[in-house]
Amino acid sequence: MTRRGFVGEHGRMPMQFDPPSGTRDFLAADVEARERAFATIRSVFTSYGFEPLQTPAFERLDVLLGKYGEEGDKLIFKILRRGEHEASGEADLALRYDLTVPLARVAAAYGSQLPAPYKRYAIGPVWRADRPGRGRYREFIQCDLDTLGSTSAMADAEVICAVHDALAGLGVTGFRFLLNSRHVLAGLLEAFGVPAELGPDVLITLDKLDKLAPAEITAELAGRGLDEAKAAELVAAMTAPDAAERIRAALKPSEEGLAGLDEVDAAMSLVAGQVPADRVEFTPRLVRGLSYYTGPIWEVSAQGVPGSIAGGGRYDHLIEQAGGPDVAATGGSLGIERILLLSAGDAAPDRRLDVAVSVMGPGYAPSSFALAAAARSAGLRSSVYLGSSGKLGRQLKWASGTGARWALIYGAAEEEAGTVTVRDMETGQQSAVLVPDLAGYLRRAAAERNN
Amino acid sequence: MTRRGFVGEHGRMPMQFDPPSGTRDFLAADVEARERAFATIRSVFTSYGFEPLQTPAFERLDVLLGKYGEEGDKLIFKILRRGEHEASGEADLALRYDLTVPLARVAAAYGSQLPAPYKRYAIGPVWRADRPGRGRYREFIQCDLDTLGSTSAMADAEVICAVHDALAGLGVTGFRFLLNSRHVLAGLLEAFGVPAELGPDVLITLDKLDKLAPAEITAELAGRGLDEAKAAELVAAMTAPDAAERIRAALKPSEEGLAGLDEVDAAMSLVAGQVPADRVEFTPRLVRGLSYYTGPIWEVSAQGVPGSIAGGGRYDHLIEQAGGPDVAATGGSLGIERILLLSAGDAAPDRRLDVAVSVMGPGYAPSSFALAAAARSAGLRSSVYLGSSGKLGRQLKWASGTGARWALIYGAAEEEAGTVTVRDMETGQQSAVLVPDLAGYLRRAAAERNN
Repeated sequence: MTRRGFVGEHGRMPMQFDPPSGTRDFLAADVEARERAFATIRSVFTSYGFEPLQTPAFERLDVLLGKYGEEGDKLIFKILRRGEHEASGEADLALRYDLTVPLARVAAAYGSQLPAPYKRYAIGPVWRADRPGRGRYREFIQCDLDTLGSTSAMADAEVICAVHDALAGLGVTGFRFLLNSRHVLAGLLEAFGVPAELGPDVLITLDKLDKLAPAEITAELAGRGLDEAKAAELVAAMTAPDAAERIRAALKPSEEGLAGLDEVDAAMSLVAGQVPADRVEFTPRLVRGLSYYTGPIWEVSAQGVPGSIAGGGRYDHLIEQAGGPDVAATGGSLGIERILLLSAGDAAPDRRLDVAVSVMGPGYAPSSFALAAAARSAGLRSSVYLGSSGKLGRQLKWASGTGARWALIYGAAEEEAGTVTVRDMETGQQSAVLVPDLAGYLRRAAAERNN
Repeated sequence: MTRRGFVGEHGRMPMQFDPPSGTRDFLAADVEARERAFATIRSVFTSYGFEPLQTPAFERLDVLLGKYGEEGDKLIFKILRRGEHEASGEADLALRYDLTVPLARVAAAYGSQLPAPYKRYAIGPVWRADRPGRGRYREFIQCDLDTLGSTSAMADAEVICAVHDALAGLGVTGFRFLLNSRHVLAGLLEAFGVPAELGPDVLITLDKLDKLAPAEITAELAGRGLDEAKAAELVAAMTAPDAAERIRAALKPSEEGLAGLDEVDAAMSLVAGQVPADRVEFTPRLVRGLSYYTGPIWEVSAQGVPGSIAGGGRYDHLIEQAGGPDVAATGGSLGIERILLLSAGDAAPDRRLDVAVSVMGPGYAPSSFALAAAARSAGLRSSVYLGSSGKLGRQLKWASGTGARWALIYGAAEEEAGTVTVRDMETGQQSAVLVPDLAGYLRRAAAERNN
């Protein structure tokens, strides 16, 4: 039942009726698996006091433009003006590119109407005109939680704990939090005497430490203008088995570095009660590419998955840059599409019905229709046969296809006896049940099956 | 907390941070009310064996164009081509305008992979560049259920029953199904000798019988070229208190009219077990404007609401016209935005937390953080105070604002005693609870409150 519809996957040519490139149709089993996952996440986030927010699919173009850099701007889906303005070929609206800029707009629009701090989650689609590929879509779900208006380390720790509980609730195993602080990174640059103007570039290179060999990193740092001996020293410290210890020692002369270590230690001690100790680690080489982070930063890595399945941190000025008020902020994002791919294939077999009701001829339609209603009144999913065949074999084949546990048969013999034949679709066993007893019989049978 | 953001409502000027014209931001209370309603609907539709389908927000432009008439085409939000093609000012994609054309595409794309019949529901946003106004949005939720591949009257009756149960489940009262058949209308035109070429126009006029006076309808019919005496006779029959009886009598000479009456009677007898008799009525004047209907048609009217809150019917050729296979189809749509407006204002007070945990100074952060976790382990929503004030009064004010039932206080005295103070936020009563007993205490207290 699962068929991903985007161009090029598995080398398949696009077909006339495929959904647009990079988007997917979700048939029943996929919808159900996804909705179950979202429900789990919502329930965890709610238990921490985060509240839901939903914003429109599109924003005014000027709200989005310039917020994602030049490359990002190119990936925004822009909407043509309408009516007489359509011919201008100009856009005035655009599909949202993430859930953060809409949050910034909401913070600006509703201000004091929002609780303080404002702890919100959002789960919804965003759209990016990226090149589609395996696990990369043009329409995909983002799953964010953020706290605006608190500088407390507890706000950071809450986000980490909520993400941990969500991952655990989704059944993800073998995952680990990598924790660092932007202040640790700034302290490192200071401690290793990296000139201020090289800082950002050096961090961009250090961000590749988990992908490139140490020698390659050293060479790239030297290429960026860093003294080669210093570069080698820095890389050696960060890739040593006892990197955390060595970095702690190296940071001693840097006030900012020590402040960063305090942030890391505060977060570690707060989450200790809820996140098992082997699931969180101080990771000095963690940079997170995005320049807007201002304090603790973290990522979640999972066994057998390249990259991260969640990430976040403190970003105290981003909301203002994104058009909102100047407010402290920390948050995180769950890579839910990636996580759903991990658990894809676990989908339960397609069971559309619990009780399938045959219709032994046009004259029996009202009775059969009423029998289906009786099954629903017992809390079971039930429907009548809607085809044109009067043959029982054909109808039982349909019943089997629906995944029903029971088929109901009601024909001349049953009408005369005032009973309905209840057929167990697994064993083939049939029981005659008095019509008025049907709902009770099915309720008891379902309870037994569930035990 | 509810603020509708579109231009012009209540005469308010649009503000810089409003969502785009005709769209809305949904803050927590609104999201929760809406999601509750959707969950109710999903549960009812599922109980009838309808399965969910989700399709992308946008389709290729050619899939949508020409499906909604010239007026409809103008209201489609078109998406600019990207990259080097953006400068062309051309569109290649468009936001979906309804959920039926995507269903037709899915039926064509997945064909034999889908169950037969294919009973699906879809609840999701659609976008129309209509002039925004009270209750009319540019982004709004449609809520459809349809059965493809069955010509059975039971398929029509199932849709009606499912819509009935959904409305009842949503707490809508005083609603009524108006039931008719396209064949009844065709028979009427035949019985009253309306020339075939006038048929469609006459139906368009008859569709206004619930809005205009009989004399106005008669005049309009005459204006359209119908003999005035015949027009008056037709209008008199359809507006008489015993219209249903008179139309039944008038249809006797028309084979098609009698077939239509059979459809109506079949539907009435099938739904009789589930829809109370006073909630469904044969309504010969019901036309439903859309020309694609081919069999039974129905609408739901509700007390005090102009227009209808649900509607549907059989449309055996529409799926083919919409780009899908030629397949029998019947379905319905719930006017969920309208229904939500009916129940707006019923939203529960904003309760974000069950247990609010104070933090009596930085040193208490880890303990307070752990107390919140203990409350969550008791199944309660809980969070620590994230502000900077160390004053209890300030923190209790915050606790009160979250709607919490209990506040937890843990300071020097509690630390010494090994207890936590649990304050009932309604009565102000405080209890000292041993820290290890907290989760159990709260679980019991919550169970008592819920009894």
